[in-house]
Amino acid sequence: MSQSPAYASLLARFTRLHRFAHLAAIAGWDQATMMPPKGNEARAAAQAELEVLMHATLTDPALAQELQQAEQEAHSEAERASLREMRREWQQANLLPAELVEAQALAGARCEHAWREQRANNDWTGFLQNFREVVKLSRQEAQLLASAQGCTPYDALMNKYEPGMKSADIDRIFGTVKVWLPGLISRVMAKQAEEKLLLPQGSFPVEQQRQLGLAVMGLLGFDFDAGRLDVSVHPFCGGVPEDVRITTRYREDDFMQSLMGIIHETGHARYEQGLPRDLLHLPVGRARSMGIHESQSLSFEMQLGRNPAFLSLISPLICQYLCDQPAFAPENLALLYSRVHPGYIRVDADELCYPAHVILRYEIEKALIEGEIEAEDIPALWDEKMQSYLGVDTRGNYRQGCLQDIHWTDGSFGYFPSYTLGAMYAAQYFAVMRRSMTDLDQRIAAGDLSVVFDWLEQNIWSQASRYPTDELVSRACGEALNPDYFRAHLEARYLG
Amino acid sequence: MSQSPAYASLLARFTRLHRFAHLAAIAGWDQATMMPPKGNEARAAAQAELEVLMHATLTDPALAQELQQAEQEAHSEAERASLREMRREWQQANLLPAELVEAQALAGARCEHAWREQRANNDWTGFLQNFREVVKLSRQEAQLLASAQGCTPYDALMNKYEPGMKSADIDRIFGTVKVWLPGLISRVMAKQAEEKLLLPQGSFPVEQQRQLGLAVMGLLGFDFDAGRLDVSVHPFCGGVPEDVRITTRYREDDFMQSLMGIIHETGHARYEQGLPRDLLHLPVGRARSMGIHESQSLSFEMQLGRNPAFLSLISPLICQYLCDQPAFAPENLALLYSRVHPGYIRVDADELCYPAHVILRYEIEKALIEGEIEAEDIPALWDEKMQSYLGVDTRGNYRQGCLQDIHWTDGSFGYFPSYTLGAMYAAQYFAVMRRSMTDLDQRIAAGDLSVVFDWLEQNIWSQASRYPTDELVSRACGEALNPDYFRAHLEARYLG
Repeated sequence: MSQSPAYASLLARFTRLHRFAHLAAIAGWDQATMMPPKGNEARAAAQAELEVLMHATLTDPALAQELQQAEQEAHSEAERASLREMRREWQQANLLPAELVEAQALAGARCEHAWREQRANNDWTGFLQNFREVVKLSRQEAQLLASAQGCTPYDALMNKYEPGMKSADIDRIFGTVKVWLPGLISRVMAKQAEEKLLLPQGSFPVEQQRQLGLAVMGLLGFDFDAGRLDVSVHPFCGGVPEDVRITTRYREDDFMQSLMGIIHETGHARYEQGLPRDLLHLPVGRARSMGIHESQSLSFEMQLGRNPAFLSLISPLICQYLCDQPAFAPENLALLYSRVHPGYIRVDADELCYPAHVILRYEIEKALIEGEIEAEDIPALWDEKMQSYLGVDTRGNYRQGCLQDIHWTDGSFGYFPSYTLGAMYAAQYFAVMRRSMTDLDQRIAAGDLSVVFDWLEQNIWSQASRYPTDELVSRACGEALNPDYFRAHLEARYLG
Repeated sequence: MSQSPAYASLLARFTRLHRFAHLAAIAGWDQATMMPPKGNEARAAAQAELEVLMHATLTDPALAQELQQAEQEAHSEAERASLREMRREWQQANLLPAELVEAQALAGARCEHAWREQRANNDWTGFLQNFREVVKLSRQEAQLLASAQGCTPYDALMNKYEPGMKSADIDRIFGTVKVWLPGLISRVMAKQAEEKLLLPQGSFPVEQQRQLGLAVMGLLGFDFDAGRLDVSVHPFCGGVPEDVRITTRYREDDFMQSLMGIIHETGHARYEQGLPRDLLHLPVGRARSMGIHESQSLSFEMQLGRNPAFLSLISPLICQYLCDQPAFAPENLALLYSRVHPGYIRVDADELCYPAHVILRYEIEKALIEGEIEAEDIPALWDEKMQSYLGVDTRGNYRQGCLQDIHWTDGSFGYFPSYTLGAMYAAQYFAVMRRSMTDLDQRIAAGDLSVVFDWLEQNIWSQASRYPTDELVSRACGEALNPDYFRAHLEARYLG
């Protein structure tokens, strides 16, 4: 059956939005990688103008009418899925009054800007003054979204990043992890205390690291005709699906973080490069959620990248591009990349400690948004949970404690769970792959990575947002999210 | 007196346009320097969407009303100048029917695309098939603009690049050049036949050339906090005044073209970087014309760059960044950079032969637009004029003859005069500077370039489009364009 006029008009509107988003993405990438400092003010003004335009396009009353009309007339399943995602994007732009959005942007910018110095100065009291306003406005946002969507305030915020996910589920999933994780960390540390490992020696010139990174990206199937690798202060995956821009940062005294960062961002990039070309202009053609996106980067970084089979595959490349030394032997690389050491900082955390950082933040931000605690209660809770989950003492150390992340400074509450959900999905995918391919690690070690890419391409990348997350995962894995695979993966890798 | 409401509203509209133009400029720069091939289709669509938006903004009937209202109410001279330039931009967008603009875009894109192969294949007949349509549409455009502006058709097209310039003036100016130029070229060639010069030896690694280029840009006052140097197939100066992006291309067997190209683009860049910051969002705050823009790049390339005093200043830098060799002695560099040799190709032409290439094109394109000749008459005219002006035989050689330039393929008739006008303005500026600074060359050789930059900043850059071109030049030089300075400059440099 042919498209209704309402749906056809929606396609035209979302195509325009897609093109504006293209310009915003490229200008944003340029800002982070290329732009000299004096370009900043004009760039910010241009980007803000584009945001106003996109918001006006999405809040045009005619679009709302067409959406309602098309929903009544939708014929095919594909069209219904497309409309569901359009509706979602419409809601994000329309459920909040413009004054609140503007107040949040201002308060967030002010808090984030001041935070950069306050963090360096360990100044929690100063931070609190701006942060209270951010919390107040985020609670208003959560309340408004919650009453429109019929869910709890925190779920309403999480819904921006993980559509359909409920904190009741997260509570159950993270509650279980909290039971087994601390014990596992202790056992692994005891085991690793007896291991002998060699540390890489030498300084590693940036250009050689870059060449190594490009070689590994090639191995991982990155399409260089549809993307680039550049440098930025904070690594990210940006650009557009047709032209994916990933970045890293280099330290001449340590290549390991940069290399694994490139592998991580390449996972994000292949998701974008693998989205169905004929749907890119529509919301249904975009990545499913932040958790699913993270499941791709973590499939690459954790399931592949830190896998001893993969490390044995790239060991010769490391020797070729950097230098040949005993520390780059496959067994030693595996030891280096699986070292467990509880610490203060989430972004520096190893695979095993990372979930503890996320659970801590989730519990605090949920209580904060639901009004169970106030902003000034955060440091005490932070200390208590760091002690309990990781045995780390952060008292008085706000800089390496509750001031370390950027997320809360601009009100991005509800995002943190995505990191650990991504790690869990990734573990589940690989468990499913291993079920049908018992020789998966041998294949990986032999460089036959296409079996992994084909599985991800078929089950995740090409599906975009056609299905809600649970259905996407069920179709891929035969069951929805099952965190047992994550635990099994960690025990196998770190105690096996 | 305070602004009228109409003028205030115009400011808001042109500020929006300025921000959209920012995004278009950065996306365009990225396309030429960074974008991988598969990004092209999405980028073209995004850019076209932005063009539609900008055109719609400029053709909004409310803007036309405000413009008329504000013109009646304008109080200050500054406001009247601002409105004059707004009116000019409005006319460019509003005088032509959308169907013609679209037909021209299509015909131009088709002709230019096919030309890339046709040029390589020396295929004039094939080119002619697409080109006839381009000419037909450009004649329509010229006719429409001419009747609205009360001028000749060719003047109407030239007005897009050189507001206010008349072909009657160009005829007179170029007519005089045609009289003395061929004889001057002959005499210079006879003189140079007896010169002994050393050719640079060696291969020059790209990174060393880049460092040399950056050092010379620094010497020329380029603000690296407000711009960058990158690589593209066709060198250009792009970006925005707050963030100027210049490019070059490198050949390892020849650093001379790249270095002089960088000096040329740095001239364009300093004009943009020197435009008044408080007017950047308005048409009156932009560069005056293409000829005046070219006068800045040629002030840098011809008046400074190929000046023996300047070459003696950068000789040590060339030795430092490339290698020390006899060919890099100041006197030999001056010989190398003033070598005269008539040839087929405009962009490879030396300072002396360049005007002949431009005059030839001007005469042919004017006759074509005015309907005195048809497209098929071009090759014979080209041959005749190349023989007459430069003594070069191009018969049957379309590739290096009338198919060499991109300008006509997409209908950019009226642009060519700007190149030689720019060279003439630049010669005039430096004659004026020398009048008050008899030791200018000693100062240049000593590295005291600020006297040149101060003059240009004060007289050209900071004036933007406040005055019509003639008035700008009169205020700067005490008289409007006087081509005698150009002839005197060439005779002094090449026969002196």
